[in-house]
Formats: sequence, structure tokens, C-alpha cells
Amino acid sequence: MTRIEEMGAAAEKAARGLRTLGAEKTEALKAAAKALKDNSAAIIRENKKDMDAAEKAGMSVALLDRLMLNEERIRDMAAAMIEVALETDPVGRILGGEKRPNGLIIEKVSVPLGAIGIIYESRPNVTSDAAALCIKAGNAVILRGGKEAYHSNRVITDILHSAFVGVGLPENCVQLVEDTSRESARELMELVEYLDLLIPRGGAGLINAVKEGAKVPVIETGVGNCHVYVDEFADIDMAREIIFNAKTSRPSVCNAIETVIIHSKIAEAALPEIKKKLDEKNVEIRADERAAGIIPATTPAEEDDWYTEFLDYILAVKIVDSIDEAIEHIAKYSSGHSEAIITNSLENADKFTENVDSAAVYVNSSTRFTDGGEFGLGAEIGISTQKLHARGPMGLSHLTSHKYIIRGKGHIR
Amino acid sequence: MTRIEEMGAAAEKAARGLRTLGAEKTEALKAAAKALKDNSAAIIRENKKDMDAAEKAGMSVALLDRLMLNEERIRDMAAAMIEVALETDPVGRILGGEKRPNGLIIEKVSVPLGAIGIIYESRPNVTSDAAALCIKAGNAVILRGGKEAYHSNRVITDILHSAFVGVGLPENCVQLVEDTSRESARELMELVEYLDLLIPRGGAGLINAVKEGAKVPVIETGVGNCHVYVDEFADIDMAREIIFNAKTSRPSVCNAIETVIIHSKIAEAALPEIKKKLDEKNVEIRADERAAGIIPATTPAEEDDWYTEFLDYILAVKIVDSIDEAIEHIAKYSSGHSEAIITNSLENADKFTENVDSAAVYVNSSTRFTDGGEFGLGAEIGISTQKLHARGPMGLSHLTSHKYIIRGKGHIR
Repeated sequence: MTRIEEMGAAAEKAARGLRTLGAEKTEALKAAAKALKDNSAAIIRENKKDMDAAEKAGMSVALLDRLMLNEERIRDMAAAMIEVALETDPVGRILGGEKRPNGLIIEKVSVPLGAIGIIYESRPNVTSDAAALCIKAGNAVILRGGKEAYHSNRVITDILHSAFVGVGLPENCVQLVEDTSRESARELMELVEYLDLLIPRGGAGLINAVKEGAKVPVIETGVGNCHVYVDEFADIDMAREIIFNAKTSRPSVCNAIETVIIHSKIAEAALPEIKKKLDEKNVEIRADERAAGIIPATTPAEEDDWYTEFLDYILAVKIVDSIDEAIEHIAKYSSGHSEAIITNSLENADKFTENVDSAAVYVNSSTRFTDGGEFGLGAEIGISTQKLHARGPMGLSHLTSHKYIIRGKGHIR
Repeated sequence: MTRIEEMGAAAEKAARGLRTLGAEKTEALKAAAKALKDNSAAIIRENKKDMDAAEKAGMSVALLDRLMLNEERIRDMAAAMIEVALETDPVGRILGGEKRPNGLIIEKVSVPLGAIGIIYESRPNVTSDAAALCIKAGNAVILRGGKEAYHSNRVITDILHSAFVGVGLPENCVQLVEDTSRESARELMELVEYLDLLIPRGGAGLINAVKEGAKVPVIETGVGNCHVYVDEFADIDMAREIIFNAKTSRPSVCNAIETVIIHSKIAEAALPEIKKKLDEKNVEIRADERAAGIIPATTPAEEDDWYTEFLDYILAVKIVDSIDEAIEHIAKYSSGHSEAIITNSLENADKFTENVDSAAVYVNSSTRFTDGGEFGLGAEIGISTQKLHARGPMGLSHLTSHKYIIRGKGHIR
């Protein structure tokens, strides 16, 4: 057995112990949250090692900021664990059922998935967030974070594990992969014997590598090439404010927009206003030829730009002559995350919501609301852009499966 | 573009046309059912070509029977299509929703998955069954049947396609892969750009090949290594009748049992009775050493037998000293399909249903009830033995995804 296989077997064993727990899980998360706060000095010390190495390696300021932990951030991590602790247990819910005509009583009950692998990049807070969600849903978890955050992830995992086991959760209910090489990620992707689900959290490169290489079932999260379509019947003020919000309120997140598509009949009136607003945040506009004719001093859009999740103060702009053309553009280039139409036409609103095949389709709203909390689903492990099992914000209930329990009195068929 | 890629692109285009259809789908299935009956002579003629080739190639009688079509079987295929036609449309259902505190109205609506691939073996009736379910759920489908049934599948697909297109469904809503080589299956498994789901239907060899090789999301169906555990507190008459039913009423199906586990305290009283009953159907018993001590004239069970889905009049028998040992045996060897406990102990019934992690867990009932119709779910495309998306009988609703439609009035975040 390789080390990863050993971890898989240990996770499967832990999952069996977690399967039937109830209030113990809540207690465990509370204890772990307290332990994080109590050990913040140790966490900051280990995080410093990662920070020093990253600085030496020339990591960008933005990435350094993602990696950095301080008292406040550790308190936030603990608070997030408490929030998950207090959510309704997603396991053991009776999802449906009936007494069949032959007298068999069939119940559909939610159960944990089993063992979950998470492959993620530099933010060490994912360690506690993912562990909390997996444990609350009764799953064992194997965490495989990035090399640059190894010391931080190591100390956080050790603190969580001690706290969990201290209140009676099974050994190895949370484990961290020591080996941060590509090889360990690949092994995890092929661990079909033990893992029930693999969730990659990070940039498009990571997601695609996992999607390509995984034999374990994967849920893709977080790739958001999102669009706003300004219809010919749009309110221009509303369009301007929504675009400004969806692009600039937090450009680095997956529900921010990357492209504005605008109807030619409204483009001349709307585009200069939109651009003026975006100039407040120095947003770089990559415009197609017709849009550039209306708002000069922009960068010409290349074919690649339509596919790109900029995650930055950059916005692609395209003019279309019909809503159908807008829908086609989205079908071709979108990652299926979130799209919005701005319109006062009921007909066009319906056409857009019916024909755009993305996880979240908005009418007259910013795409920034695609979020577990905003949707009332509680804490989320990511936004799924695939169609099976979970689509859109993925909360605790999506970390469960179900089984049927059937009670008879000697029934035969 | 390869031929398979062309078919994928065509399926994606057809899926866009199917997405918003309603009653048209019902009409299309009715028209196709009629067309199957009207063209039964042509179907039987093409089926004869497959049968002749199969006989010449020395196919077994059992497999020849699976391949064979006659008037009655074609009528059954048509009737199955009508049954699917008359089910409630699984698309466009409002699955939930709420008005959020900020006034955003969020609706969760069921939508088609898109394009589905089905890889299957010799039974040509899968062609019409799978097409009916996929189309009713608004999906385009690419069928890739086995070489031995090619002529039958070809003529059936052509008849369905003509009928579908005749009532206005999009071209290529159902397509059959002409190339029945392994290469075409492999290409289909990697068609991530176009396919939303791949369902293998057939034996364990096919399922495993698809599971190993697929990059497209897969739902495994139909591998059933099912168990009955006879608890120390079982009613022996009930145990005998349930085992006889679960093993012999239809040994070739996935919800038939392969292993009986029996508590040592009841084994001496129960096993001879059970064996006597099974002798009526000449069931071969592969017993562990202790069971063989009670019921001689059995074959010794090998380690491999515990893993095997015999799909035949063969039953493995094992004696255990506790319910925990039975649960462990199932955890190790089961395919996660259906398991039953026979007991009058409420404590043990609860322990079994809580700790056995299979799609369907029975108390005092035959496992043979794991079936879409028996569960009240309607026609099924298979029994899923995996945990994501669909687990257990997979009906029309599992051939859909969902999206969120969010309506605002200029909402920004």
C-alpha cells in the first residue's frame, strides 16, 4: 500500500464511525473552533514559515495576502466552523417515502457520502472550512493543500484532528496529505476504492487537471466566466449599476462578470455611461469592433478574451443585434456559472431564463448573488458548474447521498 | 472532427431544441411507439440478420434469447414507450424557491441534462427504452449498442428518429453509433465537450471499463452483489421463503441475491430447511466450512465467490457469530445495491439499516423489490450503485438537472 492508499483505507474506516453520529459532530466542530483560537500563536508561527518561503520565492502580493493568517483571520475561521456546527444536520433526514400498495414501507433517507478528497490551492482557511462541512455531513475528509501553505495546513489539521478525536470522533476523520507533489494529487484522483467524491478548489488549471485525470467522481466548482446581457429594453441606469457591481465589487471571485453583451439598439446610449462608471475603478475594457466605435480608448477584444475568466479589473464587451445572438454567445463561451439579462421585456426575460443553460440565470440583478449564504443554503463548499448531483451553490446537503430503507413482513416478489 | 465528435456536436444542437419542449415529447413517443408496431416486419427482418450471425458465431442460447425480437417483444417495446410517454414531464418542475429578505425571488427549476450517451450490450429493446426516457426528459441521446445487435439497433433507431422528427423534434435527437468497435466506445467516454452524462448498461466488465476510461460523468448501474442476512432472531419460514424468492425468481437480474449470511445460533435449524427449498430449483450452494458442516453435498466457497455476481442458480453461504460480522462482510464484498436482514429484533433491524451502506436496505423482505416500478418511481434507466446524483432506481427525474432562476429589480450586492 502506498501512503495515499493507507490514508484512503483509514478514511473509509473513519467514515464508518462517522456515519451514525449526530450531536457529536456539532460538539466536535465547536471544540475545534475553540482549539483554533486557543492555538492561534502556533498557527501564526507555522504560517510565518510559509510566508517567508513564499516571499523568498517571489510570490505576488495578492497571493501572499491569500496565504497570510493573523489573529483576525483565525477568529474568522473559527467563526465559520461555529456557523457550520449550528446548521441543521443534513444526515438522517427523511427525504420521502410511502407505503406501497403491497404494504412495503419505503423510506428515502439522507446519508453521508463516505470519504471525500479536497484538492486546493493557497488559502489555508480552506482547511478548516472544508473539514467543518465534510465532518458536519458525516464524511471523512482527506485534504491535499498546496505546497506553499503546507506548514499552515499541517498545524491547522493537527489542531482540528486533536479536537475532533478529543470529543470522540474516529481517528483519521480528517487527514492532510504530507506529499504536496503532483504525484500525490494524481494518486488521490485515482483512489476509487476509497474515495466517494473529489472536489478541486482553485483556478481553472487545477480544476481542468482534476477533471481530466480523475477516476473518482468529481464535482467541479468555481470556474465562473459570467455574462451580463443588456437587452434593447433595458433600463440604462439599472444596467450601469449592475454591471459596475458585478464587475468591481470583488473581481477575484467566481460570480463576478467577465463579459458584457449589449444590444445594438441600446449600445450607443448605454455604453458611454457604463464605461464612465467603470472608469471610476480603472476597469480595462476589451471591446469588439463595434463597441470600440462607440467607446474608443479601449483594448481590442481577441477571440481568447471571450473564454477568459479575468478575475481582475478587465471586462470584455460585445455588441449583438438580437437576444438570440446573446444566448448563442453565452452557450459558446460561458462556463455555465451565472448569467444575467437586464430588460423590461417579459418576453425576453423568459426567453433568456429558458434558453440560457447555466447554474444561475438572473433577471435584473447582479450575478454576485450566486452564493450559498445569499441563496439561503448556508455555508457552501463551492459553486458547482456541472449538472450532476449538485449545480450552483453546494451546501451541506450536497455532501450527502441517500439510501432507501424498506420494511416488509416477509414480502416476496 | 471525428465521426463521434460530429455526433456529439449534433446531439448538443438537438439538446438545445429539446430543452423547451413539453407536450411535443409525449406526442413524439406515442408516434414512435406506433411506428415500431407498424414496422415490426422490417425490425424482425433486420433482427434475423443479427440472429443468424450470432448463431453462426456460436452465441449461447441464453444470449440468443436476449437478442431475439418477435411481434410480441416489439409490442412490449412500444408499450414501454407509451408508459414513458404518459409519465409526468420531469422538466420545468419548480423544485423549490423563496423570496429572500432582500426581495430577490429565487426559483429552483428542473431542466434537462443535455446530451446523454448510453453504452449497452446485446438487448435491442434497450434502444427504444433508453431513447424514450432520454427524450421524455428533454435530452438528446447517443446510443452505442453492441456489434451483435447492430442491424436491430440500426433499424429501431431509424424508425424512432423518423417518428420523432416527423412530429417536430429536432434532427439528431436520437443517434446510433455506426462503429461498434472498442474505439468508438472509448471516444464516447472522452467526449466531455458534448456529453453531459454517460450510462453504461450491461455486465460488470462493461461497467468497469467505462468507469475506468470515462472522462464524461458516469452513472454506474446494475451491478448487484446482493446479500440476505439471517439474524439469530429470524423467523425461519420467512427466511427460507425470502431467500428462495430473492435467489430463484429471476437469477439473471441485478436485485437477485448472491450470498446468504446466517447467524451461527440459527444456522443448524435454518440451513437444512433453506437448502431443501433451494434444491427444488437445483441451486448450487457454495458454502464456507462451517455451513458445509451443516449442509453437506455443497461446493466449498472460495474467496472469489464472495465477490461474484453469479447471475445464475448459484448461492454462496457463510456463517457468522454476530450481526457486526455480517455488516462487515457486506461492507467488504457488496456492490452497494440491495441487502436484506431477516429478524424480529428491532434493535438488530435498526443496526442493519443504519450501518449497511447500500442503495436499498431491507428488513424482512426480498431484495427483488429494488426496481423503479416497485418503488413507485415509474420506468427506470437502471439501478444506480453509486452515491452521487442518483442512487438506487434511476427514473425520469434523475435524467434531469436543475437551475436557479433569480428575479430582481436592479439588485446589487
